[in-house]
Amino acid sequence: MPRRNPQPLPPAIAARLEVADDPRALGAIATAVGTVGGRIRTLATVRRGGLAGTAAPSAPDAVEVELEVEDAVEEAILAALGPLEEVHSIRLTRPLAKVFGKRVIVVGGGAQVAQVALGAVTEADRHNLRGERISVDTIPLVGEDNIAYAVRAVADLQRARMLVLAGSIMGGDISKAAEELRAVGIPIIALNMAGSITDHVDLVVSDPVQAGTMAVMAIADTATFDLAKQRGRRY
Amino acid sequence: MPRRNPQPLPPAIAARLEVADDPRALGAIATAVGTVGGRIRTLATVRRGGLAGTAAPSAPDAVEVELEVEDAVEEAILAALGPLEEVHSIRLTRPLAKVFGKRVIVVGGGAQVAQVALGAVTEADRHNLRGERISVDTIPLVGEDNIAYAVRAVADLQRARMLVLAGSIMGGDISKAAEELRAVGIPIIALNMAGSITDHVDLVVSDPVQAGTMAVMAIADTATFDLAKQRGRRY
Repeated sequence: MPRRNPQPLPPAIAARLEVADDPRALGAIATAVGTVGGRIRTLATVRRGGLAGTAAPSAPDAVEVELEVEDAVEEAILAALGPLEEVHSIRLTRPLAKVFGKRVIVVGGGAQVAQVALGAVTEADRHNLRGERISVDTIPLVGEDNIAYAVRAVADLQRARMLVLAGSIMGGDISKAAEELRAVGIPIIALNMAGSITDHVDLVVSDPVQAGTMAVMAIADTATFDLAKQRGRRY
Repeated sequence: MPRRNPQPLPPAIAARLEVADDPRALGAIATAVGTVGGRIRTLATVRRGGLAGTAAPSAPDAVEVELEVEDAVEEAILAALGPLEEVHSIRLTRPLAKVFGKRVIVVGGGAQVAQVALGAVTEADRHNLRGERISVDTIPLVGEDNIAYAVRAVADLQRARMLVLAGSIMGGDISKAAEELRAVGIPIIALNMAGSITDHVDLVVSDPVQAGTMAVMAIADTATFDLAKQRGRRY
């Protein structure tokens, strides 16, 4: 099995646009970007206008949109978007992959999620000091349905490279969701726990701090830990 | 000052599309969604085809795209996208706001980020048990430039509602970035630390576990903690 680190972070152009909150606006923007050969990787509304307590966007019927584009020249994108009446303003930003990088996702019970995070953040610190960008994103949840939804939704998160399941009992639909997630190329580390989940993950680790540490090592280009060689093992 | 909890999570339609990786594809999709009155909130490439170790997308020249749309009827969106030749397949998913919810972002030094995360995850657990959805997303970073970039980039993150700065000395461009972030409506809690940053945040907290706890309380609808009433205080 090849090493599961398949998606390098490509160079991209990033910009924050203030845009008319009209259903046709994003179609016009996406079409203009495509016309100059750009591939849109992200088009996401990050703020809406007219909201109490916010200072932006300036117009009440506007939204702020984060745009990331590959395979295009910055000047061409700006020239394509500038004349659109739907686009009120454009400001270049930095692609999120360069700022927050690859993501380890940790899902499960609060006490254990926190301990996995401790290991993962500490290990990510050591790699980020050497030029990596790895972030550790967590959510404490209870219940088979909620956790299974979260496992499936990891496939919808940009830059997610690894899931750690941190709990004391997981199985049933969570195990099904785990297999679905692995099938799209995102590996899973689980704590050693009750339930069927430990038969449906890449690696089982008893200590949560070590589980977090190994999760980061497995996706860090600056580490020599190869999850493929550890597959099916328990620590 | 109004309570800084300005953006409720609206109902949305979410789908994962397998799409031809052609610069014109997303323009066609965005235009089709707009034609039936939908407002695209997210259009994000989550996977590319032909990658070693991944099982999806099925075609080497395809990408998987997560689409979230508001103000539209599900059937109308499916009817608009189904006939497009750029769209190979459509599968309904769950909007990320319903799975991962509001985000507390924690940035700074590894040891302190981990302790803030411990407090924030533990507190989020208590609120998520009562129906909230709050996640805690972290990155350990070193250096004024890197941290200032991350602070500014929080404005580009969907569903980010709070930043915690967890370090021992921060100032200069980080303080400038902090004011910019607050100006777009995202409040900041900082640990008590050296440097000018503590004059440019909403709240200063000495204990990292308490800082994480308060960050979650401030954005939880199930809590009575009002950051506006605490503004400028130090604990």
